[in-house]
Amino acid sequence: MKEVSHNEAASWWKRPERIVLAVTVDAAQKADIIALGWKMHTSSTPPMYAISIGKLRYSHTLIRQCREFVLAVPGEDLSEEVLFVGTVSGRKVDKFEATGLTPVPAKIVKPPLIKECIVNHECKVVGELDSGDHTIFVGEVLTSWICEEKKQNLSSIGEQSGYVHTGGGKGYRFGIIRP
Amino acid sequence: MKEVSHNEAASWWKRPERIVLAVTVDAAQKADIIALGWKMHTSSTPPMYAISIGKLRYSHTLIRQCREFVLAVPGEDLSEEVLFVGTVSGRKVDKFEATGLTPVPAKIVKPPLIKECIVNHECKVVGELDSGDHTIFVGEVLTSWICEEKKQNLSSIGEQSGYVHTGGGKGYRFGIIRP
Repeated sequence: MKEVSHNEAASWWKRPERIVLAVTVDAAQKADIIALGWKMHTSSTPPMYAISIGKLRYSHTLIRQCREFVLAVPGEDLSEEVLFVGTVSGRKVDKFEATGLTPVPAKIVKPPLIKECIVNHECKVVGELDSGDHTIFVGEVLTSWICEEKKQNLSSIGEQSGYVHTGGGKGYRFGIIRP
Repeated sequence: MKEVSHNEAASWWKRPERIVLAVTVDAAQKADIIALGWKMHTSSTPPMYAISIGKLRYSHTLIRQCREFVLAVPGEDLSEEVLFVGTVSGRKVDKFEATGLTPVPAKIVKPPLIKECIVNHECKVVGELDSGDHTIFVGEVLTSWICEEKKQNLSSIGEQSGYVHTGGGKGYRFGIIRP
């Protein structure tokens, strides 16, 4: 074995990373969307997910105020939208308007669902933990939605074979596992 | 969109889940290994990973005492070992002995590295958060190791095509993405 920097070691195993979107709202109920690779399932009963949000991101401010989020799962047809919401700040742009994604009122939480996503989980923040340059927010799932057509969850991928490359840019490559 | 149970919605997007192993030690320095799918990168600077461990697991007791763990990344050749360490409790079994995996003294932390894994990160627990039936432990990476031969990270997979099925059992299916 060889001792290396964390970054070199991480590059050996960090992909594919399935991507999710987190939808939050500001005090005026204007919605924002962030793209996240750093998320995990974290409880079965009750169902919970943990997401890591960078401390400087606009969504970090919003989720702290709102204490709710929608965890939405993008399919293979949303590479362009994922790249946009992941690389542009919601401080200046209405991301639903800019991407054409369709907000649908949620049943319980304030942030809207995303109609074009394959799965939407309505979540209430039940825990928060400092983690270096990010904060971990734990969301309990209050209810869940699926769309009509099952698609593959979009992933962040490398240069390996085994994938259908669906889009990307700005250093990101998106795709799905080759059927 | 259709409202469904969390489990039904989760089944639409929960795989592939890359698998990691976490190595801990008891007070007598006897090492234990757990297999985890619920993990995420959670900080770039300093590098940190978050792992979710079920509250009833033996590793939960050990990591609470030890405050350190090794995050080891299994490759495509370790299906059988991953199934064993993920489904048998370390309360009764020495998992290194039972699997034939080779413990290698770490440089900084008490738990050993796993020689057969493609990557080993030495981690110190810097945060802990209750999350339903699990606890989230955040580990700061103190140093990292790679092995000589790069392999694909073993994943928990479903019944879809796109994978090389490498093993499994007891309801688990392991594999890697088809080259």
